Amino acid sequence: MSDKPSDYCGIFGIYNHPEAAAMTYYGLHALQHRGQESAGIVSSVFDEERGHYVMPMHKDFGLVLNVFEDKKIFTDKLRGLKAIGHNRYSTSGSSSNPANIQPFRVHYRNGNLALAHNGNLTNAPSLRQRFINEGILFQSTSDTELILHLISHSLKTGQFEQIMDALRQIEGAYCLVIQTDDALIAVRDPNGFRPLALGRLGDAFVVASETCAFDIIGAEYVRDIAPGEVLVIDDEAIETAKPASYMLPRKPGTDTAGCVFEYVYFSRPDSRIFGENVDKVRRQIGKHLAREHRIPDIIRSESDKKPIVISVPDSSNTAALGYAGESRKLGYDCKFEIGLIRNHYVGRTFIAPGQESRQFKVRTKFNPVRGVIEDRIVLIVDDSIVRGTTSRMLIDMIRKCNPKEIHFLVSSPPIIEPCFYGMDFPSPDELIANKFDRDVSRIARELGVDSLHYLSPQGLIEAVKEANEGKLNYCSACFTGKYPVPVEAQMGKEANELV
Amino acid sequence: MSDKPSDYCGIFGIYNHPEAAAMTYYGLHALQHRGQESAGIVSSVFDEERGHYVMPMHKDFGLVLNVFEDKKIFTDKLRGLKAIGHNRYSTSGSSSNPANIQPFRVHYRNGNLALAHNGNLTNAPSLRQRFINEGILFQSTSDTELILHLISHSLKTGQFEQIMDALRQIEGAYCLVIQTDDALIAVRDPNGFRPLALGRLGDAFVVASETCAFDIIGAEYVRDIAPGEVLVIDDEAIETAKPASYMLPRKPGTDTAGCVFEYVYFSRPDSRIFGENVDKVRRQIGKHLAREHRIPDIIRSESDKKPIVISVPDSSNTAALGYAGESRKLGYDCKFEIGLIRNHYVGRTFIAPGQESRQFKVRTKFNPVRGVIEDRIVLIVDDSIVRGTTSRMLIDMIRKCNPKEIHFLVSSPPIIEPCFYGMDFPSPDELIANKFDRDVSRIARELGVDSLHYLSPQGLIEAVKEANEGKLNYCSACFTGKYPVPVEAQMGKEANELV
Amino acid sequence: MSDKPSDYCGIFGIYNHPEAAAMTYYGLHALQHRGQESAGIVSSVFDEERGHYVMPMHKDFGLVLNVFEDKKIFTDKLRGLKAIGHNRYSTSGSSSNPANIQPFRVHYRNGNLALAHNGNLTNAPSLRQRFINEGILFQSTSDTELILHLISHSLKTGQFEQIMDALRQIEGAYCLVIQTDDALIAVRDPNGFRPLALGRLGDAFVVASETCAFDIIGAEYVRDIAPGEVLVIDDEAIETAKPASYMLPRKPGTDTAGCVFEYVYFSRPDSRIFGENVDKVRRQIGKHLAREHRIPDIIRSESDKKPIVISVPDSSNTAALGYAGESRKLGYDCKFEIGLIRNHYVGRTFIAPGQESRQFKVRTKFNPVRGVIEDRIVLIVDDSIVRGTTSRMLIDMIRKCNPKEIHFLVSSPPIIEPCFYGMDFPSPDELIANKFDRDVSRIARELGVDSLHYLSPQGLIEAVKEANEGKLNYCSACFTGKYPVPVEAQMGKEANELV
Amino acid sequence: MSDKPSDYCGIFGIYNHPEAAAMTYYGLHALQHRGQESAGIVSSVFDEERGHYVMPMHKDFGLVLNVFEDKKIFTDKLRGLKAIGHNRYSTSGSSSNPANIQPFRVHYRNGNLALAHNGNLTNAPSLRQRFINEGILFQSTSDTELILHLISHSLKTGQFEQIMDALRQIEGAYCLVIQTDDALIAVRDPNGFRPLALGRLGDAFVVASETCAFDIIGAEYVRDIAPGEVLVIDDEAIETAKPASYMLPRKPGTDTAGCVFEYVYFSRPDSRIFGENVDKVRRQIGKHLAREHRIPDIIRSESDKKPIVISVPDSSNTAALGYAGESRKLGYDCKFEIGLIRNHYVGRTFIAPGQESRQFKVRTKFNPVRGVIEDRIVLIVDDSIVRGTTSRMLIDMIRKCNPKEIHFLVSSPPIIEPCFYGMDFPSPDELIANKFDRDVSRIARELGVDSLHYLSPQGLIEAVKEANEGKLNYCSACFTGKYPVPVEAQMGKEANELV
Repeated sequence: MSDKPSDYCGIFGIYNHPEAAAMTYYGLHALQHRGQESAGIVSSVFDEERGHYVMPMHKDFGLVLNVFEDKKIFTDKLRGLKAIGHNRYSTSGSSSNPANIQPFRVHYRNGNLALAHNGNLTNAPSLRQRFINEGILFQSTSDTELILHLISHSLKTGQFEQIMDALRQIEGAYCLVIQTDDALIAVRDPNGFRPLALGRLGDAFVVASETCAFDIIGAEYVRDIAPGEVLVIDDEAIETAKPASYMLPRKPGTDTAGCVFEYVYFSRPDSRIFGENVDKVRRQIGKHLAREHRIPDIIRSESDKKPIVISVPDSSNTAALGYAGESRKLGYDCKFEIGLIRNHYVGRTFIAPGQESRQFKVRTKFNPVRGVIEDRIVLIVDDSIVRGTTSRMLIDMIRKCNPKEIHFLVSSPPIIEPCFYGMDFPSPDELIANKFDRDVSRIARELGVDSLHYLSPQGLIEAVKEANEGKLNYCSACFTGKYPVPVEAQMGKEANELV
Repeated sequence: MSDKPSDYCGIFGIYNHPEAAAMTYYGLHALQHRGQESAGIVSSVFDEERGHYVMPMHKDFGLVLNVFEDKKIFTDKLRGLKAIGHNRYSTSGSSSNPANIQPFRVHYRNGNLALAHNGNLTNAPSLRQRFINEGILFQSTSDTELILHLISHSLKTGQFEQIMDALRQIEGAYCLVIQTDDALIAVRDPNGFRPLALGRLGDAFVVASETCAFDIIGAEYVRDIAPGEVLVIDDEAIETAKPASYMLPRKPGTDTAGCVFEYVYFSRPDSRIFGENVDKVRRQIGKHLAREHRIPDIIRSESDKKPIVISVPDSSNTAALGYAGESRKLGYDCKFEIGLIRNHYVGRTFIAPGQESRQFKVRTKFNPVRGVIEDRIVLIVDDSIVRGTTSRMLIDMIRKCNPKEIHFLVSSPPIIEPCFYGMDFPSPDELIANKFDRDVSRIARELGVDSLHYLSPQGLIEAVKEANEGKLNYCSACFTGKYPVPVEAQMGKEANELV
Repeated sequence: MSDKPSDYCGIFGIYNHPEAAAMTYYGLHALQHRGQESAGIVSSVFDEERGHYVMPMHKDFGLVLNVFEDKKIFTDKLRGLKAIGHNRYSTSGSSSNPANIQPFRVHYRNGNLALAHNGNLTNAPSLRQRFINEGILFQSTSDTELILHLISHSLKTGQFEQIMDALRQIEGAYCLVIQTDDALIAVRDPNGFRPLALGRLGDAFVVASETCAFDIIGAEYVRDIAPGEVLVIDDEAIETAKPASYMLPRKPGTDTAGCVFEYVYFSRPDSRIFGENVDKVRRQIGKHLAREHRIPDIIRSESDKKPIVISVPDSSNTAALGYAGESRKLGYDCKFEIGLIRNHYVGRTFIAPGQESRQFKVRTKFNPVRGVIEDRIVLIVDDSIVRGTTSRMLIDMIRKCNPKEIHFLVSSPPIIEPCFYGMDFPSPDELIANKFDRDVSRIARELGVDSLHYLSPQGLIEAVKEANEGKLNYCSACFTGKYPVPVEAQMGKEANELV
Repeated sequence: MSDKPSDYCGIFGIYNHPEAAAMTYYGLHALQHRGQESAGIVSSVFDEERGHYVMPMHKDFGLVLNVFEDKKIFTDKLRGLKAIGHNRYSTSGSSSNPANIQPFRVHYRNGNLALAHNGNLTNAPSLRQRFINEGILFQSTSDTELILHLISHSLKTGQFEQIMDALRQIEGAYCLVIQTDDALIAVRDPNGFRPLALGRLGDAFVVASETCAFDIIGAEYVRDIAPGEVLVIDDEAIETAKPASYMLPRKPGTDTAGCVFEYVYFSRPDSRIFGENVDKVRRQIGKHLAREHRIPDIIRSESDKKPIVISVPDSSNTAALGYAGESRKLGYDCKFEIGLIRNHYVGRTFIAPGQESRQFKVRTKFNPVRGVIEDRIVLIVDDSIVRGTTSRMLIDMIRKCNPKEIHFLVSSPPIIEPCFYGMDFPSPDELIANKFDRDVSRIARELGVDSLHYLSPQGLIEAVKEANEGKLNYCSACFTGKYPVPVEAQMGKEANELV
């Protein structure tokens, strides 16, 4: 996907490690692709002087490495054997309000609590209205604050029971890591929309949105947190090497619904999510793409040079390799090539005045390799198209290198519907797949390619299930409009927020 | 007072001015001496696009001029015809928690609300406990947040009735400016501990802790807000030129209790508080000091040069002038001189490693003028002594200029008790007046002066009442231990706060 | 002087102190009034690893306390037993060019050299042209760089001889501290325009523009550096307790020429310069003012209240005290009062958009005390008037407090000519004294006062000489146009400078 | 190369473009890989008020996008139709001295001059000594300043003649862009060590170290600047569309000597340098590597799965593709795979305390894809090995994914000698190729691989010449010790520099 959608958060937790906060920092760094707007860590340390636990916190807008630039934070402030962390890109809540930066930390009558949350609550509007009617004051526009109020207002006795009470009231797509004075609690929603995995690092347990966060600290993957599972990691779990597990009921009439877009684009290729390596799934997707769209059916002219398959780096690399390999296996000669170089120094506020055009933005990110492209039939594989503006610019650049033909292969179906479970797509009428009467050949013309080919929804789900051996059902609502879990009417309406 | 106590906040509000936020900025600047830790402004502007009012806010740690260094804040963000502002030095609440910076702003079911508060609620512990028991989450450790929760949880109908409901539940020493979408509400506690004045600037009304904030913007002083008064400044008030006024009942058995320390040290000499110019009151205090401690009774040796009266600049200047003038009137020859130069560039983090001694801190702030002091009998007038450490260093410096004698005259009585109404004195055992068995001659020896003379409590109150024509009764609990309003037992206990 | 002229630099040096850089920091802080644009320190430390001395440096735009905000600079970087420092406000050279920030530090064929300079070289244009013709590249537009090139290009053998060679070629008003690997060299120009004093702190020698820099670190004043003296402080000087002294010849036909404006306004009242306390000289000036302008000749109406004498704080305080005391001695009853409060938190970028008027600037700096001024005949004493704009605003503010009369007394003559020796006055046609045909009564009207009275040039010089016992002759060219040392024609022409 | 050597600078210049500085900014961004320590731009604009040209400058430590974060710099400051820019990583000169940041800008008797320089002058020691003896003061330790002094001291008449005079005196490996009031002058050293290309953007001419800087702004590549060419781009060049060209003589006995390491590692694959696409040359190098090291000779065990070829991204991608393709052509079955994911958010100060190990640094940069590597025979292709530490860590990580075998193929010969022409290799005894008696099998053991295979020096040069059709001779001194241009003895000795 060259038209990158907004990310939607990465979470991390660790229990029983002497450098808990530093490990969280590395974990968040590995999860940086899941949210670049803000980052935060809350650790938990026993304060000898006060005789109770405290939860030091550091969070701010910016990339992980900027927010934690001053390394003294780890030795002077974020001490303790447990910590949780969060990377954020807002999907609900105003992104410019610092009060929305996670994790959230509170002290209430039953003690300390810190919480990091990823996803969207589909019943947030009614929960929020209920609290507003009671005169509760909100400090943020984040769904996460709702969970804290639910816990704090619970009439149950005991912190864990209050947490369970709150969890039973929320609906939607979410993963949570909750830190109390005694435990690290990891929660995955009953439909399992978002990935969450359990790992082990020496005597410590870790949880993270993706396993790439385990690799960076040398932790081992243990297993996924199951849909609906509430996993309690405390001293007993350390002793027995087995965290206690509780289950939240699934909403009747709904099934598991792993977000297929995590495999298509969002997760890192070196992660294992929903029980399978992302790279392997993407390769399988590429193979299906090759079977659905065969090279001889695509290319138009004769050439003495083999057609080349190039990817939009880095997210489409594996699908492109899968496409090229499978095509060769099917007997169609072609070569995988690196036809686009990606420049990695780009930041947010890069563009100078007068150059606000997308053309410039694309050029600062990608550069085509003329020697590879010139005079060739080019099959470019991308994981998805959202607005299509970046794709068009990219095609323009490739076209200037004088290829014979350009064909655009997309390793996912057309995105036509909004996501209410955490993906931040633009409104449906901004999606290119909804324009030009959804006529693919007209969209191809608009993009400037000789032909455009999407993977079919069935092909996508088949590919994923083949690679993943049917461990889960998937949500592909953004491609099909079939929403596996109902959504409250006001969802998506802007909160009445102060500026 | 060379041992400066912590300040305790300045508040400001303005209604119906095209540059409301900029005026607030200047007002806060004039009130900078009342709090140097943080500063903030919330304005109120109608958002045409959204069809309702919004309350833009800017606040941060630092001096007013640092927090509002970027002047674009006024044109780009803090727009609108009304605004409130706050300077803070914490007396309750952790000073390092940014959530404690005022003003506070919320949106609740009855609309927008912003609030700036100065003082201490004496029933805060029980109010807080009540909310904690209900599961309410606090974002700050500030008393001010309590008032917001009281308003938001009120069962009354209508915003103003909810505010009155909340005000009836709080006790202690406070002034408030509250901004709603329709009004600016100014409140002074029923005992009138802290000053709050009403002013006029063209078509606008202004309220401020001290009138020096009116002078800087060219506003005219109208009158003091009365003890217990709730003044509502809205469009009707602008039309009729008369804000509506409501009264809060005074706690039975209590009387008005203006903080006499405002006159002694805290307020600016160019302000008018409690109905009288501070400068005039201080001069009267200086005169009483001259009558209680007559020069011939103080000096020990003969000299052909007149004794000189010097002040610790700038807060003691007027009292010293009053002392010298009255002494001459009583027939004791003496000269007022400027014997100490104050350096005004000092900031908080001034001292270099290895020079942490108080001696250095004093030297960077004051320098004696040798030519004035040498060979003279020196009568130094200071407004108060708290810990005494700075005074001792100052005396050391003066001593090095070889005066014949040094006598220390304090224009207030010994501070021996804590203040529960907003003054941030150190704990009683750190007060020098409580050391050495409260023996003044031993304290004089400790300070290194030839004699030490405090104004008597009666003398102080008489002086204030003479100058102020008996308009108010005063609280002098820090000198006498007689607290005019009862204080809850837990007051002063540290909140269980996160770090 | 309420219309503050630009300052022109303070210099400091210390030899043989274990915390040389920290002492320099405090010294510069005490000299902050001499230059607020930039600050810098160069220390000198033996680098064991490299086997030779190095000169660590830290300098930047800003006040001393801002530039050295990070106190680790002193322990980690500016180590060593000697250091020199500089505060700067540019009079020549572009102030916005960081290359102009002093001290300057170089390594040339004869070793390390660092230099801090205050004043103006009157033969800079020809020196600069000579180097330009030779193809020498300049990094700054500062006169100081010229001195470095002169030293480096000298054909003499030995660093000290090269320095002397350079000094013999420069003319004008200057003080220098030069740091080499072995010595600290302090130089004062042969006419002695600017002050420079020698002090002692334990085993260390210190030099500084004003003695207030000695007081802050507890150093003792030893003596002034003589006009034309080159003082060499090295290990031998430490052992013998006597620095070696060399003399530069004075330009034939010229005499000593201490800048009288240092006494009038520029130096701190607690400093001793040109051999006498500034405070004492200012008091003498005030007395002369009282003799030249007697109260009965000034006031117009009858009043049952004594006329009051107020100062523009803080620079005019002593002159006002002198005026009031002498007037009383002459039999004219009057009272010294504090009628203006000065606000000390003002920074450079204070004014908000829309309030750019001078009126606002003045209000943020001064506030009159109504109770003191109302209904009184006010004699306001200020040290000088430059453009007059601030004075006019100040008078406006005082007028609003309803005094009976306002009379303006200036403790120096009208400033009518430019200074080529370091004072940064505006161009002559901007000086108020040159407007209105130099008619004092018309200027009074412009300022809004009932009368205006300047001290005569003779009166000023007499007062200074009386206080200072004729130790020096003085330059009063800004009042008289008589320049004691010739100035090159191109002086004042802007350098062809890059932006 | 996973052990990245220090970069050595990128330069850029543009003449006759309305947004010259913004174009330079983008160009520098594309050249960011050539130097990450500092960045700077000097533009040239006619100052109507002053009646002459001025050269506004902005430069600082940091990446291009950080240094130019405030985009107002382009509209408010760096105006004008021409500009030059520089990215720097120091090879000579202290990197921490801000005075070393380029471009350099001076005003001397013949006008303004700005200069950006990349490379090393091999006769810098004697040139510097000559100036030192004359008493010239240096502000930086950079070779570039020498060129400025040579120009400024030239006895020739006219700026261009002075520049030519200076160029005739310098020796070594360098490219220069020089900006005068009238022209942009691009210079490449007579041996042509470093690349420099001419491009065209509408009516403007551009020059840049690599053509990727042309692509980002949409400029067209015209031709390389020839070895020894001095190209003058002025208004006449714009009119005639042909810049004037002058030639510098080559040192007798020397030949052209393009740095072969530019092709191996340093330049971007999408650039065209020395007349050929880098990508194409690297592919040819990969093919030669395949011919020299045939898969059957490398692998040890039988496997039913094809061996996989993976690269160390991104610099080795093309060589790995070339290796895999050629191997298949030679009849050895294998697959190109993406086995390592590179994380692109890593900054300089990334590592937290306690994790200083290289292991952590490598993990934060690379993550192996377990699904790709597990159970496979892995042939990893990297462009070069310097110290070998990073390679060893990388191998460790790959080893943990349980491959059957790991073989390390290096697409260049062992680096055994220092570079005096601008490449910043560590000292020879730190190079892994010089350890273990240069025994490749022992080095393989040290790295933890089953075998290690370097491309031969002949193979490298052949590959380059085949791809590049013999347009140039190459320097491969770092592999062979044969230095094509003599180097002065003191080269590499540290300058006597101030800290």
